Amino acid sequence: MSRKAGRHFLQIPGPSAVPDRVLRAISTQTMDHRGPDFAEVGLRALEGMKSIFRTEQQIFIYPSSGTGAWEAALVNTMSEGDRILMYETGHFATLWMKMAKRLGLAPEFIEGDWRGGADPDRIEARLRADTGHEIRAVCVVHNETSTGSVSPVADVRRAIDAAGHPALLMVDTISGLASIDFRFDEWGVDVAVSGSQKGLMLPPGLSFNAVSEKAFEHGKAGGMRRSYWDWTDMAGPNATGYFPYTPGTNLLYGLNEAIAMLHEEGLDNVFARHARHGAAARAAVRAWGLEVLCRQQGQESGVLTAVLMPEGHSADAFRATTLRHYDISLGNGLSKVADRVFRVGHLGDFNDLMLIATLSGVELGLRRAGVPHRDGGVAAAMDLLGAAAPEELETA
Amino acid sequence: MSRKAGRHFLQIPGPSAVPDRVLRAISTQTMDHRGPDFAEVGLRALEGMKSIFRTEQQIFIYPSSGTGAWEAALVNTMSEGDRILMYETGHFATLWMKMAKRLGLAPEFIEGDWRGGADPDRIEARLRADTGHEIRAVCVVHNETSTGSVSPVADVRRAIDAAGHPALLMVDTISGLASIDFRFDEWGVDVAVSGSQKGLMLPPGLSFNAVSEKAFEHGKAGGMRRSYWDWTDMAGPNATGYFPYTPGTNLLYGLNEAIAMLHEEGLDNVFARHARHGAAARAAVRAWGLEVLCRQQGQESGVLTAVLMPEGHSADAFRATTLRHYDISLGNGLSKVADRVFRVGHLGDFNDLMLIATLSGVELGLRRAGVPHRDGGVAAAMDLLGAAAPEELETA
Amino acid sequence: MSRKAGRHFLQIPGPSAVPDRVLRAISTQTMDHRGPDFAEVGLRALEGMKSIFRTEQQIFIYPSSGTGAWEAALVNTMSEGDRILMYETGHFATLWMKMAKRLGLAPEFIEGDWRGGADPDRIEARLRADTGHEIRAVCVVHNETSTGSVSPVADVRRAIDAAGHPALLMVDTISGLASIDFRFDEWGVDVAVSGSQKGLMLPPGLSFNAVSEKAFEHGKAGGMRRSYWDWTDMAGPNATGYFPYTPGTNLLYGLNEAIAMLHEEGLDNVFARHARHGAAARAAVRAWGLEVLCRQQGQESGVLTAVLMPEGHSADAFRATTLRHYDISLGNGLSKVADRVFRVGHLGDFNDLMLIATLSGVELGLRRAGVPHRDGGVAAAMDLLGAAAPEELETA
Amino acid sequence: MSRKAGRHFLQIPGPSAVPDRVLRAISTQTMDHRGPDFAEVGLRALEGMKSIFRTEQQIFIYPSSGTGAWEAALVNTMSEGDRILMYETGHFATLWMKMAKRLGLAPEFIEGDWRGGADPDRIEARLRADTGHEIRAVCVVHNETSTGSVSPVADVRRAIDAAGHPALLMVDTISGLASIDFRFDEWGVDVAVSGSQKGLMLPPGLSFNAVSEKAFEHGKAGGMRRSYWDWTDMAGPNATGYFPYTPGTNLLYGLNEAIAMLHEEGLDNVFARHARHGAAARAAVRAWGLEVLCRQQGQESGVLTAVLMPEGHSADAFRATTLRHYDISLGNGLSKVADRVFRVGHLGDFNDLMLIATLSGVELGLRRAGVPHRDGGVAAAMDLLGAAAPEELETA
Repeated sequence: MSRKAGRHFLQIPGPSAVPDRVLRAISTQTMDHRGPDFAEVGLRALEGMKSIFRTEQQIFIYPSSGTGAWEAALVNTMSEGDRILMYETGHFATLWMKMAKRLGLAPEFIEGDWRGGADPDRIEARLRADTGHEIRAVCVVHNETSTGSVSPVADVRRAIDAAGHPALLMVDTISGLASIDFRFDEWGVDVAVSGSQKGLMLPPGLSFNAVSEKAFEHGKAGGMRRSYWDWTDMAGPNATGYFPYTPGTNLLYGLNEAIAMLHEEGLDNVFARHARHGAAARAAVRAWGLEVLCRQQGQESGVLTAVLMPEGHSADAFRATTLRHYDISLGNGLSKVADRVFRVGHLGDFNDLMLIATLSGVELGLRRAGVPHRDGGVAAAMDLLGAAAPEELETA
Repeated sequence: MSRKAGRHFLQIPGPSAVPDRVLRAISTQTMDHRGPDFAEVGLRALEGMKSIFRTEQQIFIYPSSGTGAWEAALVNTMSEGDRILMYETGHFATLWMKMAKRLGLAPEFIEGDWRGGADPDRIEARLRADTGHEIRAVCVVHNETSTGSVSPVADVRRAIDAAGHPALLMVDTISGLASIDFRFDEWGVDVAVSGSQKGLMLPPGLSFNAVSEKAFEHGKAGGMRRSYWDWTDMAGPNATGYFPYTPGTNLLYGLNEAIAMLHEEGLDNVFARHARHGAAARAAVRAWGLEVLCRQQGQESGVLTAVLMPEGHSADAFRATTLRHYDISLGNGLSKVADRVFRVGHLGDFNDLMLIATLSGVELGLRRAGVPHRDGGVAAAMDLLGAAAPEELETA
Repeated sequence: MSRKAGRHFLQIPGPSAVPDRVLRAISTQTMDHRGPDFAEVGLRALEGMKSIFRTEQQIFIYPSSGTGAWEAALVNTMSEGDRILMYETGHFATLWMKMAKRLGLAPEFIEGDWRGGADPDRIEARLRADTGHEIRAVCVVHNETSTGSVSPVADVRRAIDAAGHPALLMVDTISGLASIDFRFDEWGVDVAVSGSQKGLMLPPGLSFNAVSEKAFEHGKAGGMRRSYWDWTDMAGPNATGYFPYTPGTNLLYGLNEAIAMLHEEGLDNVFARHARHGAAARAAVRAWGLEVLCRQQGQESGVLTAVLMPEGHSADAFRATTLRHYDISLGNGLSKVADRVFRVGHLGDFNDLMLIATLSGVELGLRRAGVPHRDGGVAAAMDLLGAAAPEELETA
Repeated sequence: MSRKAGRHFLQIPGPSAVPDRVLRAISTQTMDHRGPDFAEVGLRALEGMKSIFRTEQQIFIYPSSGTGAWEAALVNTMSEGDRILMYETGHFATLWMKMAKRLGLAPEFIEGDWRGGADPDRIEARLRADTGHEIRAVCVVHNETSTGSVSPVADVRRAIDAAGHPALLMVDTISGLASIDFRFDEWGVDVAVSGSQKGLMLPPGLSFNAVSEKAFEHGKAGGMRRSYWDWTDMAGPNATGYFPYTPGTNLLYGLNEAIAMLHEEGLDNVFARHARHGAAARAAVRAWGLEVLCRQQGQESGVLTAVLMPEGHSADAFRATTLRHYDISLGNGLSKVADRVFRVGHLGDFNDLMLIATLSGVELGLRRAGVPHRDGGVAAAMDLLGAAAPEELETA
């Protein structure tokens, strides 16, 4: 096989391309996770993640992929047979619901069309009807990675409160955290779930729970049979920077570096950048005459843009063409939208020129694959980026 | 704080120091775990681990620490209330037993004195008494990391067979695999548990199950409520080199490099090297006039040597001295032997001169800490190493 | 200072961005350069560079920047007062000429307008006039990094031969080698000069001479007083893979990796890629209504494109704008064309999407800096790239 | 070939093993050496090297090996035919003398027996005799890498002053700098020569001149024909952190990291560490019943220890044995002492346990190679190290 020259464009909606600084941090020699020097690594990671989740409450870090942190959220707080209200925003919301079922819970799934975020009104209505307060938790996906739609988490909290309902609010922000605004404490989230390989710019392998005092108390009192995922076991050693079992030391090195990088840029700048790139990507899609999957204005994601293929054209064949000819990986459509949608990731350590490269890969791929479209998507994105200029990249 | 010059000696019994080749492999850019190129990475890892476990049966790789693979072994094969026979070889056998309890199983614990491996005769006797075949599994720790004793796994299998008992044989070889001989198929193991940060020379963050057909069938039919650890979910995508959720891509890069390195040295050479270093370490301990914790001849570990402190002397104070003055991390005594024992790791990517450096760190530390001992441990180890020469390091 | 997100675009005409594989190779532990294992490293580098220069004759590798290899070429073959014929293709040809003067040679400089390569006819005419054969060498720059023009080296050799002149042919291919076609033996070059940080995709720090037998004999018999640069000293140890003084070990690791990568892609594919990218870059410049500095058709470089700024506009102010707003480094105009020209590097480890990103950085920069131009350069480049498709990136 | 397990011990007297932090720094992406961000890298390196040479005067950094900086020292200050006084401390002093001859100088070589440093009295006597002040420079090697002897540089300066002689004082401290005390300003050195791959803990590829005002004025006014090595060309761009030609960017990254590490440890601590390790190595040699090459008390090097083999035994055969069986590289004897001497490097990023490992490699090698000796060298070194304890490695 002939070598492909130049840099691969990893434009799936996560894992995002890992910055060199993080890769170098990860390649630091492993240390004694029980020794005195480790405490600094551990505390820095735990404290740092609080700043990312914007919480003063507890953080738990697992050596696992994000899927594991979904499970941790459920098994620490819920008991077999518990009813929970989940919202079908897309494929990942569905997977989390299926996991809940497998774990013996009774999820109730508010159906959605995969083209927008969770609707707080429907949640409120359902909670108001639950006069016996049988529903133990409301679970929503913050940034639905399969569709590129964002749920209004703060509004969901307001809906729960408006209904006067005691359910916990659990939020999957695996692909939202550190790319789009997320405020654990201010929004009143009880359990948040995240992973390392998206906005945190790490390889996969670490997952996170942010946990409110209320949720933690649930965990102490109940939850399901569990061991690996148990919060209480974690909380003790965590207080001094240690873990109850061997942590993912080298990924923690990378995590600390990534957190530092996020703060060097400024979290609000990070969010503004993602929002701007999302807008530019959608401008390109419109110029191509294609349709963005998310059709709820204001809920389009800054993390990724899912694009509907014209009828009769295979999204997967198109993606194979772009990979083969332009060395760019795009995300596939999942389950309900399999082969109907391709997803463009514009998250993580990313900038204007990388976005244009990405969109040009899509545009050249559309041509080469013979997909009906108008040219000019790249030009439209450039117009938007040129007009809504970033603050000077280098600021005082 | 003043910088410590030179290389830290990470001589705990895992994580072992990660070779530069592996660290560089881990620092390779993350790739699309659903893309066509990933299949090669995944298949190489899965096939490679078969060669390390010496099995033709199934391997499962988790993004988790070894503790997770313990849980996976239990939740895939056992059901709530199931009785299992476990053997108290030390701290880790005890932890696994406690985990089983927490998961709702009914472990029966054969008591041990922490100074040797599992005794097959006692296992056989117990199984013979279990005429109703209520015991569903026998669980032993291959290399007990807390004590430096090795259980005779093949003999445990023979004991089970001699008793005509259908129990599964589950083996924790977290710290044994790839350092001392382990033969999954030949020894008739049903589930083996391992982790990345010991003989596999990786950072922590990957764990493994090797699974016999019999155990896999148990998993398909039953087991506990589970999601993250489910074998059946894994088996499908694994067949083509993929995983049901995001795998630990960068650690998999490192795993493939580490497996290649093990085969470049030759697994049998790797085992011989560890055995030789174990013998040299014990020669040093005897010369110091100290006592090796393991007192079962033939069951002393090549992975680590646990040393009893003279009465009235704190092992932890001694370890703090060696760390502070000689920049070497030794393992601590755990639970029953806390502060009574220190553990010298001599596993992973290691050689004669590194062992002598390690033992000299202990000897100099004993002097500095004022621990009663005779000098000459290093000299004794050198005598053994000089006499029982390694085959030339560089061979055709 | 706020962190700039994403990858910096290093689009100067060298150093080119170093591929991760090469960076990892360079970070391998330094070895004993007199030990038995080093021979393989040294021989691989020396043999590998023959394949890159396309020669069966001798290669010398210096720990130095390319400037050093210029000096080596002159001091090994020429004596004080020797007359040499040099050709003013641009800034670097001028610097080489000045170096020759400082070293005591008598360079004769054929004036050029910096807008094309060397003209073989003028060289031939001058050599025919040199009936006494006082000119000892003809020196041309293959790819003039300051202008983006390529000299027809094979035609220069033909001109020398047509004139029946015995002068040596010396060629600076610092920025041409491994990006555009170069054939040391076939073209009858006597001394070629190159460096590591351009098409070879390494950091700066290694330089090269390829040397014909005829030139090497010159060196044995004469040349100037010298020590570091002496070929004869090198030739002996080189025969077995060693060097007379400590070589640049870690850059040699990287060199061997880079040579492997070039051959994995195929040198002819590498050349075709650069040519294609040069054509696309020029299409963009034309679409912007700007002027390419090189105006000799067929001599435009595939390595870089130098662009004339509209009158009254500062190229350096424009470059500062692109760097500040779009995190892309462009090359500056040098001496005669200082502040009049900016240079776009498209060499080394580079691909279509990176080129589009680069050109979009220029186009957005032109807008932001208020430089008069037409939009559409990126679109024009995409048209060319989309039409003249690369062979599938992944071929059998 | 079977893989050698564990870490290779690179115990030649340079290159020394490069610390991981430095290797990671070197693997940082190359940057635009003309761009605004480079200035910080360049200035940090130039200023940092002043702190290492302990000078307020000028530093020049070359992309070259140390041999190049020898040449730079001579060609910038001396003119053809100039008489210089050099001192035969060993192989490298001899090589420098030969280089001076080749460059057209007239070196006068004070003969030495290779078993000590330069004798200031002999230098003073010779200078007093030079009543016409024809001698333009006195050149000594600070730490003679071929013998392990240190010349008393401050005393050489005093000798020159006592003789009232205007000659420049030039010092090769290639292997001394950053390992043993060197004070450019205080000792009145005019030109110092150094390289990256010894006490500076870098790979080879950078070399250094520290230059007094007096020497720099020599350079401006005279010196030989030169280009690459010219100080004046360097001085201008250096003032703002830049270089006249492409610098060795990635090694400069490493240099800045290494300088930081040296200051984190404290230069005086670095020197004390090397002195202590030299003493321990000599204790081992004496215990073996072998002879240290340097027999001038107080001039033994902390960088390396050269050891005389017993008559009739080949040092090179012994070194081949240690490499093959114990994976340790020792330095060979050079020219006059070829095959009579082996050299043990104990410089750079090194600590007590690494020294013991090194000495154990020698002792085990002596046994295996059948070299007559007494055992107990390692034990003797341990006694010394244990008694003369390092300050606690970790200090406030």
